[in-house]
Formats: sequence, structure tokens, C-alpha cells
Amino acid sequence: MTHAIVLGAGMVGSAMAMDLKKSGLDVTVVDARKDALERVAARFGVRTLQADLSDPAEVKRAVREADVVLGALSSVLGLQTLRAVIEAKKRYVDISFMADDATALDGLAKEHGVCAVVDCGVAPGMSNMLAGHAAATLAPCERIDIFVGGLPVVRTWPYEYKAGFSPHDVIEEYVRPSRVVEHGKIVVKEALSEPELLEFEGVGTLEAFNTDGLRSLTKTLAVPNMREKTMRYPGHIALMRVLRETGFFSQQPIEVKGQKLRPLDVTAALMFPKWTFEDGEADITIMRVTAWGGGREVSWDLMDRYDPETGFRSMSRTTAFPATIMAQMILDRRFTDAGVHPPEIPGQRPGILDDMMKQLEKRGVHYRKRGG
Amino acid sequence: MTHAIVLGAGMVGSAMAMDLKKSGLDVTVVDARKDALERVAARFGVRTLQADLSDPAEVKRAVREADVVLGALSSVLGLQTLRAVIEAKKRYVDISFMADDATALDGLAKEHGVCAVVDCGVAPGMSNMLAGHAAATLAPCERIDIFVGGLPVVRTWPYEYKAGFSPHDVIEEYVRPSRVVEHGKIVVKEALSEPELLEFEGVGTLEAFNTDGLRSLTKTLAVPNMREKTMRYPGHIALMRVLRETGFFSQQPIEVKGQKLRPLDVTAALMFPKWTFEDGEADITIMRVTAWGGGREVSWDLMDRYDPETGFRSMSRTTAFPATIMAQMILDRRFTDAGVHPPEIPGQRPGILDDMMKQLEKRGVHYRKRGG
Repeated sequence: MTHAIVLGAGMVGSAMAMDLKKSGLDVTVVDARKDALERVAARFGVRTLQADLSDPAEVKRAVREADVVLGALSSVLGLQTLRAVIEAKKRYVDISFMADDATALDGLAKEHGVCAVVDCGVAPGMSNMLAGHAAATLAPCERIDIFVGGLPVVRTWPYEYKAGFSPHDVIEEYVRPSRVVEHGKIVVKEALSEPELLEFEGVGTLEAFNTDGLRSLTKTLAVPNMREKTMRYPGHIALMRVLRETGFFSQQPIEVKGQKLRPLDVTAALMFPKWTFEDGEADITIMRVTAWGGGREVSWDLMDRYDPETGFRSMSRTTAFPATIMAQMILDRRFTDAGVHPPEIPGQRPGILDDMMKQLEKRGVHYRKRGG
Repeated sequence: MTHAIVLGAGMVGSAMAMDLKKSGLDVTVVDARKDALERVAARFGVRTLQADLSDPAEVKRAVREADVVLGALSSVLGLQTLRAVIEAKKRYVDISFMADDATALDGLAKEHGVCAVVDCGVAPGMSNMLAGHAAATLAPCERIDIFVGGLPVVRTWPYEYKAGFSPHDVIEEYVRPSRVVEHGKIVVKEALSEPELLEFEGVGTLEAFNTDGLRSLTKTLAVPNMREKTMRYPGHIALMRVLRETGFFSQQPIEVKGQKLRPLDVTAALMFPKWTFEDGEADITIMRVTAWGGGREVSWDLMDRYDPETGFRSMSRTTAFPATIMAQMILDRRFTDAGVHPPEIPGQRPGILDDMMKQLEKRGVHYRKRGG
């Protein structure tokens, strides 16, 4: 029986485990947290293994029996875990959103004959695959816009926001300068800049702003104009800019009453509890990818909501399923290239995107396509 | 020669010293800070005395030669300094904005035969005097509204605010529940609540909100409806509410990464530098006191700006001059009552307010009266 090993028993790892199990695979979930493992075992009948995955040696031990490995760990563990899995010569699909450039390990993966797909969630992930597909099919593709946001359905003052993934990674998006491509050149813009308003049926008006979300696309696609913007309910940018510019997001230690501290640690302690989804609280994931080229325009809209049946938030499902479907494609030898690949690489191959969409549909995740 | 002793060589103490010296008094300014004393001596030719006024024994020593004492110290020193001056049997006018109830020392002052006027700045201060006057002349006075704000002329994102006095006292105003009088009863309202918009010629629209500014007026005046609101440029309330409700103004220690800290200390370190007037930066003090009673309506408007000639900010001048004028009235035996009095007590006496206004006019501080 084919054996998939999932690293991480958090929300995304659990959704991966559920989906892989449903597809008939033998599944083992690995995590250091005993309670998280017990929960996922009880709910989905998967096997579990307790291991400290912050230690690459333990990662290597944990994946020994795998036919394919899926990574759903914290962004700070992303790169070292990728290296460990490659060195263990295991095929790998990761969604860790690491800050580092994963393709730095492309040579190592080729050397070991390992096929690894990274950034394989919703955005990065499906956004890359759609961009890759658009770049390959619109000839020439002149422009790609990506808008994406994960939001609570119920808007609570003052932030009207809850974090579907690590709030530290969210703040990082509000601080790190954002790279966009304009007229073939990479241009750096301030995070939270260039606000614009977009309308979504049944959701209302959202506010989009620059974040550093293009990542690999700036290198892999020869599209002269590309940008990724994050979306929130209107008003969020103004608040985040005030906090950022006052210094509340700073990681530079300051001295306050004789103690050294990082302001962000204090902000996290005060603000992040307000950014945490309640159990069973509904979220919504909204993405719009639009591409222009050769006089044509094509766009995909995702509007996915919390699934009360499984209790999985939309952000967990829309992130986990592209990875599990990609893992299945790798097992089925639909994509076999040795190397470390962002999803726009398989996304440019004929048939891959269509199959991905069909599989997502089966799981209740609908991308509505217009034009093309 | 009559000898006035000013406690504190800060902005307000310096303005007091300048004004008392101009009026022909012998003036000594007392402070612990040598550089501040040198500055005020060089500018206004006053005598100075270096002493640690946080020690009441030193206060008593410092005021020994005084015919009248003026207090311009931090709010936290207000009550203990008042007690020391009373025990030294010296007449006293104070603007320290102490959180404590100064009239708790009324008995002590009577026992020592000392006349002390406290809260004798602009608001509290002139606001009390105007309220007292209205309560005494409109029969019966049914309602008094006080609106007051000290603001920078140039509005800088995001706070559009700088603190003309201690920023800690400002935050305290945003946190402490505010007491208003409605239908003869004291009603407690949240600070920053009940926003309303007011227009001021040459300034534009300001946003007013409840703060706990009535202080002694809730006890001394039998006016059934009274409220004091603070004014800022629009948008300030929203920001302050977000920071307050997230916990950034909290003085309850929290533990962050193994260290105990008070969030307000961190906020002060980050935010207060942005709330600090630059040297020579222009400010404006705006106050509107309106009273209704017996079918009549009377109101006073103050709109006072930074004085480039003396370099004194409006907030320093409009706070210092009511105190120096009151000190002169006490020396002239226009007001002699033993006890601790808020300014509405002398304000109810015939002629006192008129003389105060004439003296303020001479110093370039104009209250425009309408109705009455």
C-alpha cells in the first residue's frame, strides 16, 4: 500500500491527513505534540509518530518508510526540513511558506533525483499554478494580477481580521518590502501600499494592498507585469500602518524601564489573541487571479467558506488540498522532474491544471473561470 | 518687595516666572534641574534655587521666604506639595492637575489659615471659573458644556496630536471613566465615548469625546447637567480606542518572553516621541464653555495660538496666566478665604471673572463672550 507521511499535525496537516486517507493511502502523521496526534488519529484513523521535527535528523528518521512526504510545518522550519527530506531521497510537497528561497536546494534535489514541489498551498500555490498556466497559454502573457485574502466571516471591531495561519507570518507580510514586476523589471514597493477596492459577490468591498507574494514567479515567468496583493476588510491597512510606523511591529530590541524587549513580542501578546479564530468560527478564502495577453483576458475566482461538516476552516482546506492532489500526481508519475519546483512549473504542463481543478471540485473547492 | 516662589521650571513654571517678573514681583524659581534653572534665570532675570521638590521637606524649606507660592509640578507630586505648602503656612496657587481630590486638605488649610486655589490653569482652571460665574449669574443655571483641546497647528499622520502637557496624563484621560452630571445625578461614561463634531473658525472640524474633566464642579455647583469633553482632530478617538481596547494602555503587568512588563511603558517608549512638540512648533488651545439657564444662553470661546515672540506654547501660556493672575488677586486681598478652593469658588464672587479676563487680555489671551 502506498504510504504518505505528513509532517505536522496542525490544521493544514490534519486536513492533508484526512484527504490522503480518503484517497485510500496509508497515512502517518508526525508531530511533537501528543494531543494533536491523538486528535488526528481518532478523527481520521491515520497512524501517528511522535517526533521533534525541529531536528532534521528526526525528520530523516520519520520519513524513512514514505512513498511521498507532505510538509505542513512552521515557516521557520521550512528550509531545513526540505533539505532533510531531499537528503532522505523522498518525494516532497510542502506548504510551509518559508521566507528563504527554496530553489537554493534545486541542485541538491537534482543530485539526489528527488522531485519536490514547494509553496503548494493556495497562495502561494494555486496562484502560482494559475499564473504558470496563463503564462503558457496566453501568448504572449502581458500581465498577471493576484489578489488573495483569508478572512473571518463575522467582522469584529477593530481589526475585522483573524489569522488563518501564523499571525507572525501575517505581520511579516505587512513589514517586508513587496516586490512587483513592472515593464519587465522588479520594483520594490512598501508593504501595505497602493490600496485599491475590489467587490466580491456576497462578501462586499475588500481593500487590497501590496505584499511580497510573487516569490518565485518573479524568476520563473517572463511576464512583464505581475503583482500580488493581499485583501482585507476596508480599514485594516490604516490600522496596520499606524501600528507599524509607531514601531509596534519592530523586532529591534528597545530598552524600557531597564528591560530589553522587542516591541513585536509585546504586540503579539496583546493583539494576537484577538486575531485567533474561535473553535467552529467560519472563515472565507477569496482569491482572484487575472491574466491578460494577446488581446485576451482570463480570470479565476475562488470564494471558499468554512466547512461545518468537517470543522475545517477554508484556509486549511484550500491550502491542504492542492498539496495532497499534487502528491497524488507525483505518485501517479504525472510530474516527475527532479529538482525543487514552485507550482508554476507543473502548472505550465498540459493537463495538470485541469486535473488539479477537477480534483479540487471533488473536494468542494471551486475556482470559477471567466474568459480565456 | 513682594516675593513669589514658583515650584517647577518646566514650560508652565517658566511662563509663570516671566509673567510674575513682568508684573514687578521678586521671583524665585525652584527645580532640581540645573539646566532648566539656568535657562529661566538667563531669559527672565529671576532668582533660582536648586532643590528636590519630590521631598516635601525641601518644598517647605524652599517656600520659607514666599509671600505667595505657585505650583507647576508633575501631577503625581500635586497633593504632597499642596500639603507641604499649607503646612508652611503659605498662600498657594497650583496647576498640577493632580489625580487626587485636593479639597481633602481643605480642613488643614483652614486650620493653618491658608488660602489655596488649585486646578487654576485653563481646563481645569478657566473652565471652572466660567462655570462658577455662569452658575452664579444665570438663575437657575440648567446646563454647562465644556469643550477643550490643546492641539498642534500642523496635523501629522497618524495621531495629528502632540501633548502640551504630560502624555501620561493624556492617556490617563483616555482610560479613566468620565463623570458627567445628568438630571442632577453623576453618571459614569466610558472615556472617549459619545463623539460629536464641532466647528471652529480658522481651525475646522474637531471631534469631542467624554473625559473625566468636571472634577470639583460635580460637587461645588448645583447645576443639574454638566459635562466636559476633550477635543482632537477627527480620527483620533478611533485610534485611541483601538490601542486602549487591544491593551496598549494597560498598566497591569503581563509576562512576555519571561519578562514582566507594563504595556503602557512600551507604548510610551514608542508613541510619546511622536507626541512631542518640536522646539518652536506652533500649538493652539481651543475651549468653548456654554451655559444655559432662565431662557438665556452664554458662551465663551478661547482660541489661543503659540506666541513666536516669547517662544511659549499656547498651552503653557493659557495655563500659567490664570494662576499668576490669581496669585496677584490673592496678594491684593481680592480673594482671601482660608481653605483649598477650586477656581469656581472665586469665580462666583462679583468682579473676579471680569478682572481675570481683563488681565488675560493684557497678556494676549482672549476669551470671546457671546450671549449672557
